[in-house]
Amino acid sequence: VNILKKFLEKKAFNMRLSSLMMTSLAGSGHPTSCLSAADIVSALFFYAMVYDPNSPKHPNNDRFILSKGHAAPLLYAVWKEVGILTDDDLKTYRNVDSSLEGHPTLQFDRTEAATGSLGIGLSIGLGMAFAVKLDNLTSTTYVLLGDSELSEGSVWEAVGLAHFYKVKNLIAILDCNRLGQSTETMHGHHVYRYEQKFQAFGWKTIIIDGHNMTQIMDSLDKAKNYSKEGPIIIIAKTIKGYGVKKAEDKPNFHGKAFKKEELNQIFKELEAKFPAAVSFDDSQYAWKPSMPEKPSKEYEANMCESLSLPNPEYEVGTKISTRKVFGQAIEMLGNACKSVVSLDAEVKNSTFSEIFEAKYPDRFFQCFIAEQNMVGMGIGFDLNGKMPFVSTFGAFMSRAYDQIRMAAIGQSRVKLVGSHAGVSIGQDGPSQMGLEDIAIMRCLPNSVVLYPSDAVSAYKLVEQMARYQNGISYLRTTRMDTPVIYEASEKFVIGGCKVLRQNKYDKLCVVAAGVALFEALSAYDKLQEEGITISVIDLYSIKPIDKETLLDIGKKSGNRIITVEDHYVQGGLGESICSALANSGMRIECLAVTQLPRSGKPEELLSWAKIDSHAIIKMVKRVLAS
Amino acid sequence: VNILKKFLEKKAFNMRLSSLMMTSLAGSGHPTSCLSAADIVSALFFYAMVYDPNSPKHPNNDRFILSKGHAAPLLYAVWKEVGILTDDDLKTYRNVDSSLEGHPTLQFDRTEAATGSLGIGLSIGLGMAFAVKLDNLTSTTYVLLGDSELSEGSVWEAVGLAHFYKVKNLIAILDCNRLGQSTETMHGHHVYRYEQKFQAFGWKTIIIDGHNMTQIMDSLDKAKNYSKEGPIIIIAKTIKGYGVKKAEDKPNFHGKAFKKEELNQIFKELEAKFPAAVSFDDSQYAWKPSMPEKPSKEYEANMCESLSLPNPEYEVGTKISTRKVFGQAIEMLGNACKSVVSLDAEVKNSTFSEIFEAKYPDRFFQCFIAEQNMVGMGIGFDLNGKMPFVSTFGAFMSRAYDQIRMAAIGQSRVKLVGSHAGVSIGQDGPSQMGLEDIAIMRCLPNSVVLYPSDAVSAYKLVEQMARYQNGISYLRTTRMDTPVIYEASEKFVIGGCKVLRQNKYDKLCVVAAGVALFEALSAYDKLQEEGITISVIDLYSIKPIDKETLLDIGKKSGNRIITVEDHYVQGGLGESICSALANSGMRIECLAVTQLPRSGKPEELLSWAKIDSHAIIKMVKRVLAS
Repeated sequence: VNILKKFLEKKAFNMRLSSLMMTSLAGSGHPTSCLSAADIVSALFFYAMVYDPNSPKHPNNDRFILSKGHAAPLLYAVWKEVGILTDDDLKTYRNVDSSLEGHPTLQFDRTEAATGSLGIGLSIGLGMAFAVKLDNLTSTTYVLLGDSELSEGSVWEAVGLAHFYKVKNLIAILDCNRLGQSTETMHGHHVYRYEQKFQAFGWKTIIIDGHNMTQIMDSLDKAKNYSKEGPIIIIAKTIKGYGVKKAEDKPNFHGKAFKKEELNQIFKELEAKFPAAVSFDDSQYAWKPSMPEKPSKEYEANMCESLSLPNPEYEVGTKISTRKVFGQAIEMLGNACKSVVSLDAEVKNSTFSEIFEAKYPDRFFQCFIAEQNMVGMGIGFDLNGKMPFVSTFGAFMSRAYDQIRMAAIGQSRVKLVGSHAGVSIGQDGPSQMGLEDIAIMRCLPNSVVLYPSDAVSAYKLVEQMARYQNGISYLRTTRMDTPVIYEASEKFVIGGCKVLRQNKYDKLCVVAAGVALFEALSAYDKLQEEGITISVIDLYSIKPIDKETLLDIGKKSGNRIITVEDHYVQGGLGESICSALANSGMRIECLAVTQLPRSGKPEELLSWAKIDSHAIIKMVKRVLAS
Repeated sequence: VNILKKFLEKKAFNMRLSSLMMTSLAGSGHPTSCLSAADIVSALFFYAMVYDPNSPKHPNNDRFILSKGHAAPLLYAVWKEVGILTDDDLKTYRNVDSSLEGHPTLQFDRTEAATGSLGIGLSIGLGMAFAVKLDNLTSTTYVLLGDSELSEGSVWEAVGLAHFYKVKNLIAILDCNRLGQSTETMHGHHVYRYEQKFQAFGWKTIIIDGHNMTQIMDSLDKAKNYSKEGPIIIIAKTIKGYGVKKAEDKPNFHGKAFKKEELNQIFKELEAKFPAAVSFDDSQYAWKPSMPEKPSKEYEANMCESLSLPNPEYEVGTKISTRKVFGQAIEMLGNACKSVVSLDAEVKNSTFSEIFEAKYPDRFFQCFIAEQNMVGMGIGFDLNGKMPFVSTFGAFMSRAYDQIRMAAIGQSRVKLVGSHAGVSIGQDGPSQMGLEDIAIMRCLPNSVVLYPSDAVSAYKLVEQMARYQNGISYLRTTRMDTPVIYEASEKFVIGGCKVLRQNKYDKLCVVAAGVALFEALSAYDKLQEEGITISVIDLYSIKPIDKETLLDIGKKSGNRIITVEDHYVQGGLGESICSALANSGMRIECLAVTQLPRSGKPEELLSWAKIDSHAIIKMVKRVLAS
């Protein structure tokens, strides 16, 4: 054991040197945040963790989430010590063509999760731990937290839920180095304050000196044992900048690389501080990874067999809400594909994820009213091979927007479903109306935004979402019942639209989606009676957008388009079309919500917002008259 | 005291009847959530709170924040009991022309803060309590929390910070009715679990039976006393649906109004349950409000004297970052106007709010890394007459997006400032880049979005923000130093832009803002050498947008516009222009960030994103050639 301990200290020493070298070469980065955690990370990778270094996707590998993502150099340094990266690789840190980015991203294939926005890692780890349990795997998920990020409420959402479900095989480690970016943290080095909080939230805790390798090893042993029962945190009191005298426990050294010219002196200091590490001969200890077991039979059995759903049985003309169809569709999908899981923020009877729960209670996760942790968990589920459908009110997706942003950055395939879109929810009023959801989802890289109007399209778009593998996707559903307009065999694709009304005499084309589509169809009927014929397009895929069809039908309809949507005017369907058809010479008028909405009956509010059939007819006539 | 207690019970009884009547008439709403809290609210308004019922803006009024906003009928019911609303008013609840909305909004002038998205009220109350302290006022802020919302991490952000600052005159009351919308809460009726958590976070706690008026009154007395030292919570065990047998403590009654036809029977049940209330004769107790003291002299002294700043002293050609200028500008503003406060999420040395802190430490609030609570506090400061500038990285504004959404719904004038916009921040990588901030701020009602490029415009736009009173405003600042291009006397207005280059031979107009503007100016110089002249516009006000000038200059420049921005292509500057000029016949090409960004040097990333001068020149030539 003594020689192992010396070996771990040597590895930590090497990682300190590497972290300093990388940041000084790059001229930026967070070396002092690496120095406080080097001993912990050494013990994790060379003592505690079970993993196959050459098989990063092994399902039974222990997972390591660097929630304090600014300590990225340490992550790269440890993989150099493992033998996966070289010194030359490390020297590319933060270069524009390097996979070793400033904060961890999946560009580097050993990064388990993209981090860098604080307070998200524990939620990701929690999702992973749930996935491990579903598959009866053996892997433990380790999450390294910084103390600054414990002021983020999202952390406490994860802490609370982990205890509620007595989640196993989840070990958090707090690198409590006292200093934040610009000031001392709320609790400084009073580690007992963190202990009190975690204990009150039901967690087991161990307090250690984070630079004492014996204590680190012991605590990891104990944590591993205890983690068979529930969540545990090792609270490690550490020194920020540990080993670099001028920076040790000092303010104003956060996120500051030392000058290259200083490195020699600093390395000398480190050598003086860690003589045993310097004199340690690597041949004294032949480290071998603790290799993971073969995956469980449950893991194999839970693979997705098919993403094909049978045609639904909705009959044209009957009425049902798209939110309810969402519930029915994921229930069907859950049958075809065992990796489907459903996450709810305590609104399952509004979003109808309760339909999935009733059939697959083991794959349904009640996250309570804590949307940030729910989305973070979704990222974790996806990273561990599950297909998470995360649903709540569209309005409350805004609560988890940083996590959604990070999901996009982490190339997650998490599927987001927001119900109660628009003013058409009615009396509950503006706080409950999703009116910015299209805008905030559209702008993220590789995102897909879908907005079905009827049951068949909703059902089929859930199937399309399931198949989408290149990023996050968002489905917008409606509270009220709407009539089925498509035959059950109709096909829907991401990036498509449906031309519902069109003939060669059309003078104008109305493009709508969701509830507004029915207003457009109603306007069509009324205008028809007056002898005015218009085209009507169902733009169920808002991103990507079917520019060609819009252009084609728009041109055939007098080069005039009116867009209608139950969403704020900025960033929604209308602006998407303005942007897509910017240089087409098309006249475009956008009907959308332009003011602060209020309570009222759905039809009253559609009228108030000037997105109902009357408003459409008025605009059609105005455009045709001018 | 006995007669007072009976009076309070009678008032609670009346409010129960009113809440039931309102929701049944409206056919929707949350009666059972009102029934659990009626006794508490009665004791607050008729026993504990100090306020002038006829002077809702009195600075020394105690504040009441209904964090569980779905209990809105109770808020309206209590104001009816106070004598401000009539039964006829209550009958308008949820009507399209009523100020009594489904969740509380400022349409009703006694609502202290718009609520309805859960977990925000305590942050608002915390901001108010800080404001009270600044002004040396006597008012106490009461926040009524639901138990479901305690799973929101944002609550724990507020709880942690309130203790850190030992905030006085802040009293939270938890209506612990066990049942959420679709399931039991995490802790059900185990009120000691909440006690443990609040105590671990440093709060004083009192546990009571929330339907025992004597206990409620006692606890309010004790809380008032203790609140002179620090934050305290009364944890009230209550019964959801209290008084309506079929619904009492039963699931599936959340957010469900009883049928009108059921009301007679329900009222009979209530009368049987509360015989003392029925037989209580109002003439037995003559309630008089506890009137507030005159405002303090500090309150008067802290009024804003002026929002006029002297011209800044930046010299054309010198280089300084707009983020630093923001810090300098609010320092100046803090001198002119004593109501200015600055809120930071532990990045004050990045956003430069530290400049304000150095001069006005009492008006600077370190919120640590907890953006949601910071924005919630900002709402509270604004409601209590302060002018909050809330700053963090633009990327991390996303963390508080639901609070920002609710700020807009609550017609708040909170001023948001996001630094480190765009890929131009460089090596720290995508997690730190604000690339969606324009999109998410633009879409909210009455919001203003400003994006200065140089020091003078940044300074003057801070002044403009301070003057903006109709909603939230957002200022986007840049990490890198940029050259001063405007004379110190130049004027900037919300909704304006600056035509920087223009002559009659221009064949095209480039519109940019922020860092991209300098790329545009550089492109102008290079194109000039090749004999191609272009107009260049600085679109520092993205919302509202100066459509007229864009149209005018665009027309004079060959009807061709190229937009350039360091932001995702959706919802940003370019799309704003596509939308504003949709029917102008203008050719518009948008240069913006279209892919998932990465780490690299600022100039490398501007080039990678094709938003640098080379990309502009290339696009200019392509447009002119086609």
